[in-house]
Amino acid sequence: MRLVQKFGGTSVADLARIRAAARCVLRERAAGNETAVVVSAMAGSTDRLVAWTREMGPLHDVREHDVVVSAGEQITVGLMALALHELGARARSWLGWQIPIRTDGAHGRARIRAVDAAPLEGCLRNGEIPVVAGFQGLGPEGRVTTLGRGGSDTSAVALAAVLKADRCDIFTDVDGIYTTDPRLVAKARRLERITFEEMLEMASQGSRVLETRSVEMALNHGIRLQVRSSFEDRPGTLVVEEDGDEDRDVEQDIVTGIAYSRNDAKVTVVGVPDRPGVAAAIFGPLAAQSINVDLIVQNVAADDLRTDLTFTVAQADLDRALANIEALRAEIGFARLMGDPDVVKISVIGVGMRSHAGVAQTMFTALAAKGINIQVISTSEIKVSVLVAEEYTELALRALHTAYGLDDVADETAAAGG
Amino acid sequence: MRLVQKFGGTSVADLARIRAAARCVLRERAAGNETAVVVSAMAGSTDRLVAWTREMGPLHDVREHDVVVSAGEQITVGLMALALHELGARARSWLGWQIPIRTDGAHGRARIRAVDAAPLEGCLRNGEIPVVAGFQGLGPEGRVTTLGRGGSDTSAVALAAVLKADRCDIFTDVDGIYTTDPRLVAKARRLERITFEEMLEMASQGSRVLETRSVEMALNHGIRLQVRSSFEDRPGTLVVEEDGDEDRDVEQDIVTGIAYSRNDAKVTVVGVPDRPGVAAAIFGPLAAQSINVDLIVQNVAADDLRTDLTFTVAQADLDRALANIEALRAEIGFARLMGDPDVVKISVIGVGMRSHAGVAQTMFTALAAKGINIQVISTSEIKVSVLVAEEYTELALRALHTAYGLDDVADETAAAGG
Repeated sequence: MRLVQKFGGTSVADLARIRAAARCVLRERAAGNETAVVVSAMAGSTDRLVAWTREMGPLHDVREHDVVVSAGEQITVGLMALALHELGARARSWLGWQIPIRTDGAHGRARIRAVDAAPLEGCLRNGEIPVVAGFQGLGPEGRVTTLGRGGSDTSAVALAAVLKADRCDIFTDVDGIYTTDPRLVAKARRLERITFEEMLEMASQGSRVLETRSVEMALNHGIRLQVRSSFEDRPGTLVVEEDGDEDRDVEQDIVTGIAYSRNDAKVTVVGVPDRPGVAAAIFGPLAAQSINVDLIVQNVAADDLRTDLTFTVAQADLDRALANIEALRAEIGFARLMGDPDVVKISVIGVGMRSHAGVAQTMFTALAAKGINIQVISTSEIKVSVLVAEEYTELALRALHTAYGLDDVADETAAAGG
Repeated sequence: MRLVQKFGGTSVADLARIRAAARCVLRERAAGNETAVVVSAMAGSTDRLVAWTREMGPLHDVREHDVVVSAGEQITVGLMALALHELGARARSWLGWQIPIRTDGAHGRARIRAVDAAPLEGCLRNGEIPVVAGFQGLGPEGRVTTLGRGGSDTSAVALAAVLKADRCDIFTDVDGIYTTDPRLVAKARRLERITFEEMLEMASQGSRVLETRSVEMALNHGIRLQVRSSFEDRPGTLVVEEDGDEDRDVEQDIVTGIAYSRNDAKVTVVGVPDRPGVAAAIFGPLAAQSINVDLIVQNVAADDLRTDLTFTVAQADLDRALANIEALRAEIGFARLMGDPDVVKISVIGVGMRSHAGVAQTMFTALAAKGINIQVISTSEIKVSVLVAEEYTELALRALHTAYGLDDVADETAAAGG
């Protein structure tokens, strides 16, 4: 079997952990598998480098940011290769420009365009373990690019695709995907498997274990992903295609997981004239400023003349969003504008929803029973999201986890965590 | 005028200093000069990275060491470019592989083979300041190489050569070359100029301001070097060709500077049979082990049959040297072997010695007057070196500094330092 093994920042946070990760690699080799390794920067390193570029100037040249920030992965590929050598294996490091991993020119959030498999195939043929710097690539003008936060996952999946790997293992500081955040809900349960679509929703709704783009790419190329811990030698969570796994429980849960995001803020525009084109007049300028709008609801107008419009933006964009809309007050003629950063978006996710009714109703009932007011509701085919006051985060998660029958009642995780 | 400006680790040790260095660059631009910048890694960064590679394994692969260690300069080029942007200048970073700076394959101590001037000339033509990562290059197999300690000076001189720069300014934490180490001798005086040959001897005899290889390269390409401080805006010391400067004092000092090195150790082989080939029998095996031997003296044999051989090696090589010679005891038949790490080599240097007699005699007299015993003496055309017990370092330096009339008697340096 051929594997790509990707180690995140916490798995290579210091020399001892790099050595432990190297032992994970050699366990696969000992089991007869061929493996290519992708590493992130040591935990904290990227944050420090990013902070330096920001401190140098708020409007910094992203191309230089990429030069600075990509140094983190350069350090870990070398150290990982050395760790593998010390354990008796042959290995060599590969930087993005050396393979090369070609990307577009969108510095800071570049997309991978092509990866030359030949040098890595050659490396594997020679019995060497290629150790590839994640997160970085070579732009069209020969400059260093980075793929954006979590980009090392994408690097790993891209390599798995060109190397036709049988599986891509994402090693991190958690041992898999949980039904919800186990730090907040002691009864959270590790999933043995999850579908790509569910994983995508989990990621986009706030679960930070896997980066959305890497899941999309894995789905597109049919790469089996496994999320597992580099600290324990046991299987993690497999991310698989929906139909491909006949041994999946027949009586599967309707809801697979519950994600939450505290990074949203709520904007309410009160007393908007209820006429065609008014939504476009508000959201157009926000889009032009690259402010992404997520949940949107428009209340029924009380007097058929005016309505209230509520939506969410990223917390970091709240002030800019409010300033933008305020500038449109004369043009639109709304009565009042309110911003609230103290909200949390909670989403229940599961492909089982497609064939089951009443999923949303269970959510509303469970939250009402705890006295939690729902501010905004949004549904999609495999997801129901609600916006509630941030102070209810833990209470809401626990209530929903129980209501959907996800609680882990008798295993070691519950014992350890609860 | 076209300049290359090189900033050492202490000159880019933190963001504030990088900004200060950027202001040095822009002062030259404001004066109408064209400038290319070379930077080292932030002070301490290279040491930390080197320590990591060593900790990973004592016999580490130098190619991976180079990948890890070169990350330091990668960080500073990006930050320096950003600092220049913030001050309103156009600038872009260049990594060794991007130019490229081609080197041989001797990882860890590579030699520059060729530098493509075209990309940097293009940069300058566009009114951009090229900011080049020192210390690193691209090896023949497309891998990252490093030039060894102090290699950024060599990078700067190589760039000055291919860019046909009028001067190469080496910015460091001292404001020039001194007659001797001002930390040990308060009356040390900053030199306005020094010849390449003197600078080479100073560097090879222990002065750590400039790396020997960079001085050799500057001499070979006729590049005027200036050593100056990035913390003060005033001229430093010019390193120039001997004849080229007619304004040099007619009554110049016979001795220009006094260097010292505490990194040597003394080896004495007592009772060596005084026959042809015995020196080769000792030094051959040391050379084969890459142990460099410096000062060598052979005492006159007391009985015409046996002699004592004394020489110096680097302190770090002492144990290996002793073990090597001990292994030859039966073959050579010496009586006793002694090693002494507590020695200092003191060298007085000056091109004026060529036309003046009695330079060595002044040295012997001055040291004798302080009761300092000379263990080994070695002379060359522009240098006299002696080995004395390490505890006399400061005393010997001060006595010689006075004896050769180098003392600074009445300027601000003396007032501040003494």
